[in-house]
This record gives sequence, structure tokens and C-alpha cells, in this order.
Amino acid sequence: MSGGPPVHIAPLYPLLYEPLVRRALEEDLGRAGDLTSDAILPPHLAGEAEVVARAAGRVAGLAAALSAFSVLDPAIEIQTHTGDGEDVEAGSVLATVRGSARSLLSAERTALNLLGRLCGIATATRDMAALVAPYGAHIVCTRKTTPGLRCLEKYAVRCGGGHNHRFGLDDAVLIKDNHIALAGDLKTAVERARRAVGHLVKIEVEVDSLEQLREALDLGVDVVLLDNMSLERLREAVAMAKGRAITEASGGINPRTAADIAATGVDLLSVGWLTHSSPALDVALDVG
Amino acid sequence: MSGGPPVHIAPLYPLLYEPLVRRALEEDLGRAGDLTSDAILPPHLAGEAEVVARAAGRVAGLAAALSAFSVLDPAIEIQTHTGDGEDVEAGSVLATVRGSARSLLSAERTALNLLGRLCGIATATRDMAALVAPYGAHIVCTRKTTPGLRCLEKYAVRCGGGHNHRFGLDDAVLIKDNHIALAGDLKTAVERARRAVGHLVKIEVEVDSLEQLREALDLGVDVVLLDNMSLERLREAVAMAKGRAITEASGGINPRTAADIAATGVDLLSVGWLTHSSPALDVALDVG
Amino acid sequence: MSGGPPVHIAPLYPLLYEPLVRRALEEDLGRAGDLTSDAILPPHLAGEAEVVARAAGRVAGLAAALSAFSVLDPAIEIQTHTGDGEDVEAGSVLATVRGSARSLLSAERTALNLLGRLCGIATATRDMAALVAPYGAHIVCTRKTTPGLRCLEKYAVRCGGGHNHRFGLDDAVLIKDNHIALAGDLKTAVERARRAVGHLVKIEVEVDSLEQLREALDLGVDVVLLDNMSLERLREAVAMAKGRAITEASGGINPRTAADIAATGVDLLSVGWLTHSSPALDVALDVG
Amino acid sequence: MSGGPPVHIAPLYPLLYEPLVRRALEEDLGRAGDLTSDAILPPHLAGEAEVVARAAGRVAGLAAALSAFSVLDPAIEIQTHTGDGEDVEAGSVLATVRGSARSLLSAERTALNLLGRLCGIATATRDMAALVAPYGAHIVCTRKTTPGLRCLEKYAVRCGGGHNHRFGLDDAVLIKDNHIALAGDLKTAVERARRAVGHLVKIEVEVDSLEQLREALDLGVDVVLLDNMSLERLREAVAMAKGRAITEASGGINPRTAADIAATGVDLLSVGWLTHSSPALDVALDVG
Amino acid sequence: MSGGPPVHIAPLYPLLYEPLVRRALEEDLGRAGDLTSDAILPPHLAGEAEVVARAAGRVAGLAAALSAFSVLDPAIEIQTHTGDGEDVEAGSVLATVRGSARSLLSAERTALNLLGRLCGIATATRDMAALVAPYGAHIVCTRKTTPGLRCLEKYAVRCGGGHNHRFGLDDAVLIKDNHIALAGDLKTAVERARRAVGHLVKIEVEVDSLEQLREALDLGVDVVLLDNMSLERLREAVAMAKGRAITEASGGINPRTAADIAATGVDLLSVGWLTHSSPALDVALDVG
Amino acid sequence: MSGGPPVHIAPLYPLLYEPLVRRALEEDLGRAGDLTSDAILPPHLAGEAEVVARAAGRVAGLAAALSAFSVLDPAIEIQTHTGDGEDVEAGSVLATVRGSARSLLSAERTALNLLGRLCGIATATRDMAALVAPYGAHIVCTRKTTPGLRCLEKYAVRCGGGHNHRFGLDDAVLIKDNHIALAGDLKTAVERARRAVGHLVKIEVEVDSLEQLREALDLGVDVVLLDNMSLERLREAVAMAKGRAITEASGGINPRTAADIAATGVDLLSVGWLTHSSPALDVALDVG
Repeated sequence: MSGGPPVHIAPLYPLLYEPLVRRALEEDLGRAGDLTSDAILPPHLAGEAEVVARAAGRVAGLAAALSAFSVLDPAIEIQTHTGDGEDVEAGSVLATVRGSARSLLSAERTALNLLGRLCGIATATRDMAALVAPYGAHIVCTRKTTPGLRCLEKYAVRCGGGHNHRFGLDDAVLIKDNHIALAGDLKTAVERARRAVGHLVKIEVEVDSLEQLREALDLGVDVVLLDNMSLERLREAVAMAKGRAITEASGGINPRTAADIAATGVDLLSVGWLTHSSPALDVALDVG
Repeated sequence: MSGGPPVHIAPLYPLLYEPLVRRALEEDLGRAGDLTSDAILPPHLAGEAEVVARAAGRVAGLAAALSAFSVLDPAIEIQTHTGDGEDVEAGSVLATVRGSARSLLSAERTALNLLGRLCGIATATRDMAALVAPYGAHIVCTRKTTPGLRCLEKYAVRCGGGHNHRFGLDDAVLIKDNHIALAGDLKTAVERARRAVGHLVKIEVEVDSLEQLREALDLGVDVVLLDNMSLERLREAVAMAKGRAITEASGGINPRTAADIAATGVDLLSVGWLTHSSPALDVALDVG
Repeated sequence: MSGGPPVHIAPLYPLLYEPLVRRALEEDLGRAGDLTSDAILPPHLAGEAEVVARAAGRVAGLAAALSAFSVLDPAIEIQTHTGDGEDVEAGSVLATVRGSARSLLSAERTALNLLGRLCGIATATRDMAALVAPYGAHIVCTRKTTPGLRCLEKYAVRCGGGHNHRFGLDDAVLIKDNHIALAGDLKTAVERARRAVGHLVKIEVEVDSLEQLREALDLGVDVVLLDNMSLERLREAVAMAKGRAITEASGGINPRTAADIAATGVDLLSVGWLTHSSPALDVALDVG
Repeated sequence: MSGGPPVHIAPLYPLLYEPLVRRALEEDLGRAGDLTSDAILPPHLAGEAEVVARAAGRVAGLAAALSAFSVLDPAIEIQTHTGDGEDVEAGSVLATVRGSARSLLSAERTALNLLGRLCGIATATRDMAALVAPYGAHIVCTRKTTPGLRCLEKYAVRCGGGHNHRFGLDDAVLIKDNHIALAGDLKTAVERARRAVGHLVKIEVEVDSLEQLREALDLGVDVVLLDNMSLERLREAVAMAKGRAITEASGGINPRTAADIAATGVDLLSVGWLTHSSPALDVALDVG
Repeated sequence: MSGGPPVHIAPLYPLLYEPLVRRALEEDLGRAGDLTSDAILPPHLAGEAEVVARAAGRVAGLAAALSAFSVLDPAIEIQTHTGDGEDVEAGSVLATVRGSARSLLSAERTALNLLGRLCGIATATRDMAALVAPYGAHIVCTRKTTPGLRCLEKYAVRCGGGHNHRFGLDDAVLIKDNHIALAGDLKTAVERARRAVGHLVKIEVEVDSLEQLREALDLGVDVVLLDNMSLERLREAVAMAKGRAITEASGGINPRTAADIAATGVDLLSVGWLTHSSPALDVALDVG
Repeated sequence: MSGGPPVHIAPLYPLLYEPLVRRALEEDLGRAGDLTSDAILPPHLAGEAEVVARAAGRVAGLAAALSAFSVLDPAIEIQTHTGDGEDVEAGSVLATVRGSARSLLSAERTALNLLGRLCGIATATRDMAALVAPYGAHIVCTRKTTPGLRCLEKYAVRCGGGHNHRFGLDDAVLIKDNHIALAGDLKTAVERARRAVGHLVKIEVEVDSLEQLREALDLGVDVVLLDNMSLERLREAVAMAKGRAITEASGGINPRTAADIAATGVDLLSVGWLTHSSPALDVALDVG
């Protein structure tokens, strides 16, 4: 996993976001469409507008958000002036859209709602990644995402220089306290998991004590999730796991606590806050 | 519009949220389901778990969120201990769910993601409504919602004691600066709107100066949106509009500025922050 | 609301009608497609056909209906010779379509079914609007629409020079006899509604006596629906409500009764017949 | 094909109509639900209501229409007092529905819109079938149905004692004038069709002259569609086709012309009017 | 029904297969897309690849399969070198695709999965049709198809020179032993069917003895399905039915038994094996 | 990964297969439903039927397949006599279904089509797993699955005692020859992949020579895919990779070649044949 700025971020295929954009447009247009624009603007009036960042931040989801214009009206021309993973200043023009004035105003809110949220996540990730980079640590996101937007929000995390933890319940094993309690003990849980899953699936175990950690390491798990440990305990845990498993800290990590946690030497900080509580970036449409 | 606590909040029909819950479950289960629980937990193991608020807040979307359990597994029993619109303390048990241990853990994250977000919005709304209530003002939300969740997020605002502005572009006319610029002048815009729309549609106009306000009032619009005005200007505007139109302030309103703005006498404060940037409430599932 | 001919009718975005057109094509093509055309017509045979009105009427939904051709086969060229809201004579060519002969015949019925229905509604609306125009009254449609076609049928009413009543249960309050009975009395019902709904929502009350009307007016409702009143009673009601609320007549209004009702001075005639029982306009495809 | 009253009409599986009912409810509830009922009716208020035919007619689609109540609110109890294919008098109670007063009023319009349309079609079919029965003729419907409702409208025709023509382009061959013109001649068209289609597919040919009819009969087609012929010509055609092919008349058939056409001896009258232009039956919900 | 090679096979409209292709792509791309290609291939790297048949066979579904490339990435250029219904040798290049290297590799498996299956069915059909052609018999497929792919698999049978039996339960009557047992006797079953269905629906009866066959023929059914009869019995049945009904053999027909069965003189051999158990054709994508 | 019989196979949630079952039923019922059963069977006739395996095999997908009955008609009672992962003899009764005779016959084919396919895959997997078990090897499936059925077909492989390779392009990295060619060299490809993907994603590399294998092992990849190697070469490769990476053989593996390949000592045999070309198990519905 790279610590530097995101150089190559794979573009999302429209296949993955168009259904969401379409639903969002339908949600906003309702049954009667844009009463205001349709009433006030002549049908053939053309216009031009700029998508502007009102605050500085990291861009994410630009193509997905702008597709709101083209899904509504394929004749809208879209010209981007930056790209996902780029940093922009307050006032930066991210894109120019041209075409029917009605279409521009009717799709505006859908485009901005998506863009503001994704840029907000990317910006928060970027800032947190910068806090932990000096310690060689990385930021990973969680499954605490907005229902229906996981794929886009995890993409925004990548745009921010973060990495993705599981996309869902089916792409890795993560054994938590509840699983251990119900299985009886950690050893049983890990052995059952190892027997059940395929050869391409990694196994991670959440531990909250050094004894549990030792047991997990002895079982040869791939990753240990050090949950809600004090900084001192984290440091001990990292020392114990060094070279035996990837270490990941979790539990109430936010911009104020991230640097100290990274300083303990953990490989990864797992941060739900990025996707469930980070503020949107302020973006707007300025009709020229 | 009532300023008191929400007594009767219309329940959302499952018809409105089940497709979203279903998509969210599919998003989390992926193609192979919950690898961890399926591997570790015996198929017939039953369990019981509590949905707990880790922080104090206002409940919203409880039934919608808990439907994640029953949509996944209709045999899960759900017992709620509070209801939407209620205030809870940190540590409160919101609901108890019983049934297949696998099902409980497999639906957990989907339920909590939805619940945390909606309670977060309701809580933020409640707190802001309390700030403005002494001045007789009300909080209204905007169309700055998460793509695909508008219906639920606006419901959460109502649970928080706020009121809803437009649900979409088709349920009222809101003439903004762009419309006026493109139409030529405010009078033309209002007249076109009035000719076009039905007898059940209200007309609101965004103004940013007292001259514009005067013109809008003379045109007999129903509501005036006072955008980004200073407190002093707001006070003058409210005085001018008194008895002639409902007044609504907008522009960067947040918990720090709301009380001062309400003190100007405006009827409504329009707050995008509630739905695009308020933090989630911390909720969790404790397996007993 | 204008009484003149529809000058600017906002075009419907394909987003709103394409799913319906797609379903209609799937419904007609079934699992095996157009057995007849596929068997008889060579695959590369090109053709040209005219969409013709066999009877005089008002055009509505032309683009939506013709999209059946392009949704089935994007290579079909469509040229329209008139537009929604225009009046045409019997025999008028509304559009010319060119391309694969198979595609033209395979999409024909889907296009015509939609066009005939929407032009039928627009034509009936136009004729009824003409009957009431001399009295300054307007025609509004109801929620008595074909399941799944509301958005298009209400658009057809606008093309006919009519106006739209509520698009659904969520865009205005309409308190009917059942609501009043269940709430206990009119006053309670209106007060509850006023407390519950947002500042952009109007309140209409259905009344069937002058006493009820007086009570409604005293409560300051926006619109009164005068249901199933005799012409004389209507006249009294209109006089009473003048200047205090918009008046709307309803109940069995059809082309034979509309003029007399309009003559009572009501502002609006609410007509379910337009969307649930008006006959389709006869339209056909003539292969050249 | 039986001429008597419909004794056994296969019930429609919910699988076939529930998606439509769901879309219709979503269309009516919009994003905010039933503002009026939710505001005015206490959440736990129970009620009972009767679905009543305001005019005499033939019942069709009762279960499908009433499913609007149960799809919205599974707790609603539905009791039917008649069944599809039955004749009812004006004032007849078709069903009683019991449960949440809000749910009853919120689903009312969706249920009635569907019921009124389907009963309207069944009633019109019944009446027209009665006109032609004395001559041993039968009524068949066409593909001129409402987009998205074909399956239900054809069912209503069966409830009315009519029979169904093709359900779509893929269940029989119907060679029309356009096909013949494009194929060059009738013989070529029929031979191509016979070569192409399976052994379970019948072939029908539209003819508009006795010469064409003779040619079609000589080619051994299963059914001849006698299009827009005068009564005298029809009589000759029927005589010519007797015992060689089923005869079907089409072209502007309506309640005024049906009996005379049937008197010519044709086997079938193909009537588009039933599904595209027959008026809805007046049905209502009376809250007790 | 022709016995020769398929000259004119009606193309499938994208409307019929695009939803399937889209679902298949979503199934393969999951939530995070093609991790490998996205990581390794530069975003703007262009490439060219050939779709190759590794084994000899009959082509079917080429356009449908290749649409996986264009649905994922509309900028991909597709050039076909053969067409559905053509025979190709091992090593033949079926098509060339050009464009983004990432898109080519990301859509590869979806395209090949569909193509291999459809060409496999067409090839198996072709081979079996060749076995029975000397006897003037034809191959027909059944409803034993892959859930969700019926329309495409039946098309592949046509590409292989076979014919289609029923597409579903609704396009012909096929009375089987279970129906007869439940109806009481064959005569009752046939008479009920004849009364119930429309004039364009044929009636086929499954018989397993010569007595049943005689009864079916006396009832004038259109087709008789001779189920699981010995070759000798088949021969007798064919002799008895000659000129009175189409004869169709069924029951465990496969490439080893088909010729002998055809030699009995039956008109049709009904073969489920083609669609439920024939092997895929080996097709691959070679990046140039 | 266990080599023994499947003891705990996680049940599939209906959420994952109901949309497919629903589409399959719609595909079979078409627009008019089951013409035959509806015509012949009285509406209230009840029946009982057994789902029987006509051949011996391994059961898979029983609940999913039987859901066709309950999705069509919730009143059908389903009683299973075995479970997924069990072996059954020819003639075994897998389940008994009771209820409306019409419903039983109308859902029959949909249920059997799904069941036959999944049991066929499970049976083929079981047999191949038995061939390789003596050598300690395991069978894994590929992404060569039927479009739209991946999740079910991979489940059937698990029921057969096989293991799953990637579910899609997004749950592991698999670097193939094309990727290497386009990236320039293997080292670059692996390094790019490692930088890009998360800490829970494994990396597999396809190699076709011992030199490539050595390079891959030196790069520390998790799994090596030994593609189309001779038995001797495979043996050398396995020796070289022992203890350094999991070894997986691929390329034309089928029941005839599997044992010899397993004897080389590879850990896994990757078999596309199981899902794209294995024959269906013969299953039937016997009405009692």
C-alpha cells in the first residue's frame, strides 16, 4: 500500500453509479419535474455554468456527480478542469457544463449532493492520511458507510489516499468478540473459519487484550484488529505482532487522536468516522 | 407548524424504505454472504442482541433500520423499547432482536448504518430546534440530502422536531438568483411561474437585498428566502415582510449561528448542514 | 393559471417515461419478439412510415410515444411535424420515422398505444377547457389516473390546456368527508393539518354544505372543494367564498355538464373523467 | 370458446400484478406519503370501509385492486363479497376492508383506479358479448392496451366473457397489409412465416378484399382477419371461408355496430375499443 | 419449418438481453471492480483483442455477448467477422474488439461466459439436426432452460437450425399425464382446454400408449407428444397419426439416440438436453 | 479447506436468490399464465407432489429451487426430506409439496430447472473431489459461470465439497499473461498490484514456465496458477513452490485428467467445466 499521493486511481465504470444517479434524479424531479425552471426558462435557452469548490479539498467522484447532467440530458456538454484525487483551492472551478439552461438547473442539486459528499470524504481521508504518514501508517475505511453508496464512498476514500478494508461481509473473514463468544473460544473460531473459506480469503481477528493477541498470532492469522486499546497497550501489541501479522487499530479514531495512535507503530488505522460523519465539501453551481 | 416535541410522527410505510434496505443488505452480503458468521456459527444457534445507543440522542428510523433483520430473515423477532421522536440517554437499549445468531450478525451493520445516520440527523435537528425555539422560529431542511435517502432523511428531520422544505423540484416553486438572471427580472419570473403552476403550489423567491425583497412582496409571493444576509439586514427584511410573507433565512446556518439568526425574527431557518454534514449517532449491537 | 392556448409546455425528460416505454415494449415483444415481421421482412430492408392522426385532436406525448422506436432500435430516425399542445386535423402527419422495416413494425403498437391515450386525454381536456373558458373557469385533473401513467396523463392534461391538481398524496392537503368524520370535526382536522405540514403546503377542504363552507372559510383554508352541489347551491357557495378562497367544483363533471357548472362562477372544475374514461384518439402508422 | 358466462376464470397470480400495484402506490404516496391522513388521523385509529360499485357492471380485478391495501399495510383485513366475472348492481358492496384508518385512506385511490378500469373493461366486454351471442359470435380483444397493463386488461376481457387475441407480437403470426406490401405478395409472406415459426404457432392473415381472402384460404392459413369490410362484403367473405378458416372481423367495431357485424356470421369480432376507450366503472370507498 | 441451414435468423433486440448482460457485469465487477486490471494497466492504455473459437462450432449470440464490452465501456469498438448461424473452425476469429485495455480485460469473462454457452447450444443443436435431417425430422427445444436465459437459449437453438417449442406456459396448451389424471380423463381435459383458450392457441397432448393416442387424435388435437415410447411403438404411433396431427417424440433424446428415433418417421424430436446439459463451446479472448 | 464431506454449508439467504426465482417464474408464466393448468384444473383442487431425483447425485439448492412454489403461491406447503450437501440415490424423494394443484404444476418447471442445474454441478464436483482427495488436493471453481447465477453455482460447488475461487474481479488479484504482457514484466505487475490493493486482498499469478514461477515466488505472491503445464512440468513446479505459495493447476481439467493432475501434488485444481459444461441432474415432479 502506497503512502504517497494517489497517482493512479481506477475510474469507476458508469455501470456502478448510474443506477444511483438515476434514482437520485427521480427522487428530485418527482412526478412533475422542475416546476420552477420549466415555468421560468424558455425551452431553448442555452446556458453555461461552472461547478465550483467553495472550500479547499480533495476531489472525488467528479465524473459520477457530473453524470447527473448527462443522464438527465445527453446533450449537455461536460468539461472537467481537474480529476479525482487532485487537491483544489477554495474557488477552484472543477468543471464547466454547457447546454439547456433548464437541464443545468434541474440536475444541479443531484450533482452537487453527490459531489459534496464524496469530496468531503476524500478531503477528510487526505487530511487524516497526512497525520499518520510520518509514522508509516495508513488509513483504512470500514463498512460504516451510507446505505446504497458503499462503492462510491470507498472510492472516495481511495481518492483521499486511504485504503479500503472489506467491501462487504463476503470478501474476508473478520472474527469479532461476538463470534468468539458464540463459538466458545478464539481457537475454535479461527479453525472453523480456516476450514470454511477459500484459499484467497484472508483472516483477521479482533482482539482486546495481549493474551488474545498472542493466541491469535499463534494461530497464524493474517491481520489483528487491536480494538479500543490504550496507546501504551497498542505499543505493546505492535511489538508483539511485529513480523507476524499486520496490525490495525480501531475504536473512536478521529482527526484529534489519529497521530498519537499512528505513533504506536500500527500498520493501519481503521476509521468509520470518514464515511459516517465527515462533513460534506461545499460545492456549488455558478451560472455564468 | 408546531414548536413543541413531536407527538404524532406519521410512520413511514415499508414500501418506502424496503427497497433501500434490500439494496443495502445486498451491498453488504455481496455474492458469498457473511463468510465469518457462516463459518463460525452453527446454523441453528439462536441468540439475542440489543440495539444500544452509545450516546444520547433523538431516535429516528428505528423500524426502518430494524427491518434489515427481518428482510434478511423473517423469523427474527424484533421488540422495540422506544420510538421515533423519543429522546434517549447514552446506554439506552432501543430494541431487542432475537433469532438465528447468524442472521443477527449478518444484518447488524446494515441496520446500524441506517439507524446511526437517521438518529444523527434527528439529534442535530432537535438541538438546533431548541436553539431557535425561544424566538418562535422553526428549523426546515433542504434538498441537500444523500442521494437515494431523501425520504428517510426528511423523516428524520421531522423526528427531530424540524419541518420539511421541498421534497423535490416538483412540489413548490423556488425562484433563485439564477432563475431571475436568466428570466431577465424578478417580475417576469414570478409572473411566468404563477401562470404555469397549479392552484395548490406555493411560490417562494430567494432575495439578497431589501430592494429585491420589496419587489417580491409587491408581487405577492408566499415565502421569501433571505439568503446570506447579515443579522442587521435580516432584521430589516423581517420587519418589511411581516404579515406579507413567510420569512426564511438561509446560508451557512449551523449550531453556532442559529440562535442569533432566529433572534432576528425570521419564521424559518433553512439548514442544509443537518442532512449533508451532521455526524451519525453512535449506535451498536450488543449480543447478550 | 392561464386560460389561453398552451404556449410553453415543459418537455418531459426521458428519465420519466423511458422505464414505462421499455416495459411496454417488453410486454409486446414477449420472449420471442415480433414473429411476423422477423419471419417476413428481410433483416436489412429499410422503410419509412408516417404517424398519422385519423381524427382531429390535440397532440400530447409525441416524443414519449415515438421513443418506442428509438428505445427498440437507436438507429431509427424520427422527424416530428408538430409538437405537444398543437391542434391537428384528421389525416395530419404527426411524424415520420425511417429505418429498419422490422423495427418500425415491431415498435408500432407500443408507440401508438401511448400516443392515442395521451392525445385522447389532451383532446378531451382541450374541448372541456373551451367550454368553461367563457366563464373564466379552468379545468383541473384528479388522481383518478391509470396506474403507472400518472406523470404522463397529467402532462397530457397540461397539453390540453388544463391544469394539474395534486400529483399524489404528498403535495398538498385535501381534507375530505372521511377525514372530517374520523377527526371528529372540521376545525380539528384543519388545525391538525396546519400543525403538521410544511410552510409550502396548501390546504384544501371538501365541503358539501354552505355551513361547512362557512366553517372552512373561517378557518382560512386555501381552497374549497364544492362536492356534488346543485348549480344553485354552487352559485351561493361561490358568492360566499369570493375573495376568501379558491373555489373548485367536483362530482360527475363531464362534457355535457361542464359549461353550466362553470357558469356558476367557480374558479376550477375538477374532472376525473378526463383520465379514467375519455376515449383514445385514433392514430395509426402508415408505411409508405 | 364458450359463449356462456365465465364459470372458471383462472386467478391471476400476485407475481403478475404486484409490481404494478407497488409502482402505483409509490406514484401516489410520493416521497412524503399521505400528508392529509397522516396529519389528521391518530396512528392507532382503526376503521372499516366498503368498496362499493356506484353503477351496475361486471367485476374484474378485485383481488389485484384490493392488494393495494395489503401491499401498503399487510395488517389490513380484506373480505370479498363477490368475485371476478360476477355481475353486480349499482350500490353493491364488493368487499370490506378493515384495519388502520390511515392505511385504508392512503391506499384507497390506488385500489379504486385499478378496479374502476378493469371493471369498466369487463362490463363493456360483457355488454358487447351479449350483443353478438345470438349470432354465435365471440368478442376478442386486441393489443391496443394501456402500456404496462396488458396482462390485467386482457384478464378483464376474459372476466367480461370475451376472449383474448394475441398477448404480444410473439405468440402468433398476424400478417397485415404492411407485411404483404413489403414482402411483395401474400404467398411469399405466408410461406416465409410458415418456414420460420414453430409447430405450435398459428398463422392469421389480414385481408381487405375477396381476392385476397381466396388467396389466403388457398394457402391454408388458420385465421383470416376481415378488415374494414362492408356488411355485405363480410357476408360473402364468411361464406367463402366457411369450414376453411376461422373468420374475424375488425375495424371500428363498437357497441352500435357489433350486432350487425355479428349477424354476418363471422366467428369473431376484434375490438380495440374495449381496452383503449371504454369508460371506467364508478367504484368508491365508503368509510363506515 | 425449414430443414436447411438458417438463412435468416431474426436478430435479438438489445432490449431483450441488455438487462442480463448488465446483471452479469455487475456480478463480476462486484463493488470494487477489476482489482487486477485497474492496478496493473495504465488508465489510458489502448489495446486490441480477438474473440476466438478454440473449437469448431456454430455461432450464436455474438452480438449479445459482445455487448458486454460496450455496456461496460461505450467507447470500445467491436468488429465482427462472422454472424449468428454461421459455422466456424477451431481457431476462427469471431470478432475484434479495440479500446481501453482495462475495459477489454474487465468485460472479457462476462462476454465469454455468454458466448460459450450460446455457441455450445447452437453447436449441439446443429449436430443433432444433422442426424435427423435425413429422415425429414426436426429438432425442437423445451422449457428446460437456464433460469433467466430462456429467450437467449431458445435463440441459440434457432441459430443451430432447431425450432422452438413453447416459450412459456402461456403460448400453447400442452396436456400432460398429470393434467389428465387430475381432470379425470383425456376427453374432459381437451374439452376444457378448447373452451378456455383463444383461437390462436394450439393444443398438444402427451400420450404414452396407442389407446391414448387414438383418443387424442379423435379429439382433433393439433400435436401429439409421444413420450418415452420404444422405437417400435413410435413407428406404430406415427403411422396412426399420419395426416391427423403433428407427431413429436420426447424422453431422454440425446445425440446417440436421435437418429433412430427420427427414423421412425416422427415430425419432431423434443430435446431438453440441448439447453440443460450440452457443453459450452470453448471461446477465448486473445490480446494481440 | 476441508477434504471431508460438507458438514456445515451456510444456507443462502432468500434475498440472494428470490429475484432470480421471480424472474424465472415470470419468464415461464409470460403474460397469460399457465394456459393448460388454468383451463383444465378446477381452481380449488388440492394436490400433493414429490420432487424426485431420477438419478443418483448430490443435492444442492433445494430451498432455492423449492421457493419457486412459495413465491408463486405462499400457501403451498413444502416439506424437505434431505438437505443440500447430502447424497441421494436414484428414485429418492427430495421433498413433498402440497397445495393448489394449479400452483404445483405452474411452478414445476421453474423449480426443476434450477434444481437440476445446481444438483448437476454439485454432483460433478463431488465426483471430481473424490478423484483428487487421495492426493490431498482440492477442487476449486472459476468465474466461468452462467450469467446471473454465479452466486448459486458457486454455492452448488460448495455443496459438492469443492471450494470457491474468486467470486468476481474484485475479491482477489489474479495476474494473467495478458496483464504481464501489457505491464511489461511480471515484477512490475506484481508491484503495482501490491501497491494498489488493500491488506486483505491476496495476490495470485498465472505462470506457464518454471522461470516465471521462480520469479513469482521470489516476489512473494500468495498463490501460483500453473496453467496448461504437462504433468512432469507440474511436478517440478510443485516441488519448487512447496512451502512458498499455494499451487493451483488449471487448463482443460476434467474428470478424465483430474486424478493424474492431483497426483503431481498441486494443492488445488481449478475447473471451469463444473459450471459451464457439467450435465444437469435428472429431477422430476411426481403428482401423487
